[in-house]
Amino acid sequence: MNTDTITAGLLVIGDEILSGRTKDKNIGTIAEHLTAIGIALREVRVVADVEDAIVEAVNALRHRYTYVFTTGGIGPTHDDITADAIAKAFGAGIDVDPRAVAIMKPAYEKRGIELNAARLRMARIPQGADLVVNEMSVAPGFRIGNVIVMAGVPAIMESMLHSATAKLQTGAKVRSASIVVSHAEGEIAELFAAHQAEWPSVAMGSYPSFKDGQYATDLVLRCVDEQSLVDAHRTLAAKLTVAGFKFLQT
Amino acid sequence: MNTDTITAGLLVIGDEILSGRTKDKNIGTIAEHLTAIGIALREVRVVADVEDAIVEAVNALRHRYTYVFTTGGIGPTHDDITADAIAKAFGAGIDVDPRAVAIMKPAYEKRGIELNAARLRMARIPQGADLVVNEMSVAPGFRIGNVIVMAGVPAIMESMLHSATAKLQTGAKVRSASIVVSHAEGEIAELFAAHQAEWPSVAMGSYPSFKDGQYATDLVLRCVDEQSLVDAHRTLAAKLTVAGFKFLQT
Repeated sequence: MNTDTITAGLLVIGDEILSGRTKDKNIGTIAEHLTAIGIALREVRVVADVEDAIVEAVNALRHRYTYVFTTGGIGPTHDDITADAIAKAFGAGIDVDPRAVAIMKPAYEKRGIELNAARLRMARIPQGADLVVNEMSVAPGFRIGNVIVMAGVPAIMESMLHSATAKLQTGAKVRSASIVVSHAEGEIAELFAAHQAEWPSVAMGSYPSFKDGQYATDLVLRCVDEQSLVDAHRTLAAKLTVAGFKFLQT
Repeated sequence: MNTDTITAGLLVIGDEILSGRTKDKNIGTIAEHLTAIGIALREVRVVADVEDAIVEAVNALRHRYTYVFTTGGIGPTHDDITADAIAKAFGAGIDVDPRAVAIMKPAYEKRGIELNAARLRMARIPQGADLVVNEMSVAPGFRIGNVIVMAGVPAIMESMLHSATAKLQTGAKVRSASIVVSHAEGEIAELFAAHQAEWPSVAMGSYPSFKDGQYATDLVLRCVDEQSLVDAHRTLAAKLTVAGFKFLQT
């Protein structure tokens, strides 16, 4: 079993998320993907399309986590300032990159899209960065140091995330198991806390819901060690049964 | 016109968001609400249910913005550590608060819910805090200094957000207007950048989409001054028309 802990921070860049006009979907997608491949997402930040805010956040996160992923702000319009801000954060130069042009030019010709000055902005890549392939709209993302810079449009972000994944170091996968009981959190809290105390290596959380007049609580167990997870899950189910709690799902 | 800028940070607390298991809905709701009442959301952070992470983030945000809103981690189970972490961040004591018990006891009796030790955890409120009323599940949130602490369950969070709003100082409302054109971003970028340069007081952003084989770009203008917004919107529409761009929506 791989027991290394590989960590990540995520930086979502965009005025439209902070104004509430666009509802972010990338946080959930990236969180799920990183969990699945064995990278622990430890922190997310959302900042505006403001250079100082981007520079400060990316510098805070890149020194703290194995990887930093960013989304948003790499399109062709004047408000797309992420690439320049990332270059500034690294003290790196930035210019139109021939490798990006070499990818974009033939693909745009084929699609009948003009590679004008605005679109060439999308070929601006910080010095020392590697390109991250985008199979949707072609203009690439990039990786510089431990920072992976991706688009904000969900389908394009996903294409870049999958391209970048092959070169990521991954660690211990956190497995999870859950039991849903038809009781409010306040009823199972004592039993659940005692179970957590018995299994310190298994992280336990409870998530309440209330639907159709029915309380339910989802008890979630998370652990990198499969056997501990199975044992902690089985013994929790047994304790709940003995105490007379009813299950909705196990 | 109110021209004060009132700012906010938002701290989302919860392992389940970082694992991807739960998809956050509160960021969008809070962002939209704050924009509507004239508070500028400047930054969002998501951290795990880890005391040090919560303390560090809340202290960073509360010194930087007029208000900080937090969601998550104030339920009755062992993984709900937000109230204690907030007390620690403020160097305040924390204990079961008679004001909270006075609200919870009769409501729970009426609903046939036992006010057991676990549920009394939800009455733990930092010293010096005011309660934030929760009309859904009764157990209150609280406000200490400029920090408003709310539940993570969206319906309960919304009830608390609306309770807390009456006592918030609000400032200039950012108005917005948009034009959707049936063209890719790269085609309108030059015209749009020139228009932004003419109207520095109006923040302009563009948001691309691609549906049913059709490119579209949503050009969004945001400004606290209604007249500037109207004029910038009208003149942008005129320029786009002259240049032969097609509108999907204006």
